Amino acid sequence: MPAFSRLVRFLARDGRVYYGDAILPRGVNDIAKTKQARIVTGDIFGKHEVTERVADVRLLLAPLALEDVKTVRCLGLNYEKHAHESGLPLPKYPVLFYKPITSLSGPFDPIPVHKMAQEELGLDYECELVAIIGKPCADVPESKALDYVLGYAIGNDVSHRDWQIKRGGGQWSLGKGFDGWAPYGPGIVSSELIKDPQTLKISTKLNGKTVQESNTADMIFNVKQTIAFLSRGTTLLPGDVIFTGTPSGVGMGREPKLWLKDRDVVEVGLEGVGTCTNKVEFGRETAKL
Amino acid sequence: MPAFSRLVRFLARDGRVYYGDAILPRGVNDIAKTKQARIVTGDIFGKHEVTERVADVRLLLAPLALEDVKTVRCLGLNYEKHAHESGLPLPKYPVLFYKPITSLSGPFDPIPVHKMAQEELGLDYECELVAIIGKPCADVPESKALDYVLGYAIGNDVSHRDWQIKRGGGQWSLGKGFDGWAPYGPGIVSSELIKDPQTLKISTKLNGKTVQESNTADMIFNVKQTIAFLSRGTTLLPGDVIFTGTPSGVGMGREPKLWLKDRDVVEVGLEGVGTCTNKVEFGRETAKL
Repeated sequence: MPAFSRLVRFLARDGRVYYGDAILPRGVNDIAKTKQARIVTGDIFGKHEVTERVADVRLLLAPLALEDVKTVRCLGLNYEKHAHESGLPLPKYPVLFYKPITSLSGPFDPIPVHKMAQEELGLDYECELVAIIGKPCADVPESKALDYVLGYAIGNDVSHRDWQIKRGGGQWSLGKGFDGWAPYGPGIVSSELIKDPQTLKISTKLNGKTVQESNTADMIFNVKQTIAFLSRGTTLLPGDVIFTGTPSGVGMGREPKLWLKDRDVVEVGLEGVGTCTNKVEFGRETAKL
Repeated sequence: MPAFSRLVRFLARDGRVYYGDAILPRGVNDIAKTKQARIVTGDIFGKHEVTERVADVRLLLAPLALEDVKTVRCLGLNYEKHAHESGLPLPKYPVLFYKPITSLSGPFDPIPVHKMAQEELGLDYECELVAIIGKPCADVPESKALDYVLGYAIGNDVSHRDWQIKRGGGQWSLGKGFDGWAPYGPGIVSSELIKDPQTLKISTKLNGKTVQESNTADMIFNVKQTIAFLSRGTTLLPGDVIFTGTPSGVGMGREPKLWLKDRDVVEVGLEGVGTCTNKVEFGRETAKL
């Protein structure tokens, strides 16, 4: 069981990067507003402790250091209305694809858009509940699946529909895998605090206007079922990150289409966790790793 | 530039696991036959040395330790005849999908077949040239792309066609991502030794009979073009493993179909590198990690 409640990784005022347990100001529920945190030392997946030492937060980073992430799995079509708006049938099994670890970025990082994703229209947002695996598991039954979850975050499965669907040969990963196209955070809320991940409001705001608004209750395959299925014959490891699919309201599902433009600001939010606010940057070509 | 010529990772007679530089017996070209190796110390992607100390090899393991691997990328449909036998058009761009790092295994490891991949027919082999990235790169031009390659291996992109094509919602990763479904090795031949990866004979033998036989000259997107393309807007990291697609002759492309069965032995081979020989095991459900 993790010793932290809300794991954050941050650049501190002293210029160093730490793992910490967020100290939320009274009445604040969004980890993105964290100003201070108790420093966490040790192995966040193993023996670690929340120390007495409080650090001032300058900037929240991706909640896991790149070296602590193993594999990023994502589900497609995991909300019924989103499958409809995508023009695709409801899946009988979870539809799995992967993003590279280099696509992960933090709650305030820019979303860099490479030239090749500027050639055609199709840049889109997808708010998603993100589950982080804390212990190795394989062939875990649904009834025990949540025991292997370290905690939950909100993420944006940034997607370019032209590369994803048309020019990727039908395989979605290329058009979803660019550097910085999986911002997540703002921290990881321990599964001790979120006992039931299927009751949470989830949303996206584009330049302040709500464009996706749903509840994790509407998932086709809930987190338990997803982890049980994904672990069949495949060992999940501490540091595996699972994006669990997006509800309806994406830009591709609208008429007229609503594509992300340079300098758009996308905010994805999850109840009890907080928000990630990321600015689309056509000029910036690669993420800082 | 790596100090080794043929990187192997092995269980030694002393019971420990080492990185080593294979010492090939005179006249032997297959790294799988390595009996001794000079121990390599340090960071195989950075400062390291091939020491004077020679160890006896008990068993060759996957050439990279799991903690040294970052991301496994794979190309589909990268040989013309294989695209034809798959009934799919020639791709205009490289078709990218991912395997999880847990699918990687060694040159003599079993291929465990989980119950869910035994429900329907469709278990297949795919011999592939594997390139291992040695230095970070992004937006690298074709002319410089091979400078970022640590070396080459032979791999088997084990696939279950039913999960890959039918039950995976069109996304290939699930049916190719089980534990141990990407044996590779038997070692990594330095790109100093293989200056041109497009001239190598590549083959698969099933229970001793040749079922795939081609040359890397026949790739649609060669290694240079593949790395340049994959690095567009996506940073490739040391320890990224790239499976470059399979030639024709897979079981799916035959009439009657030729599916792998329990206890079948599959040998994939690459000229100048050697062979991986893996036994299909329906009884063994998860790989040893």
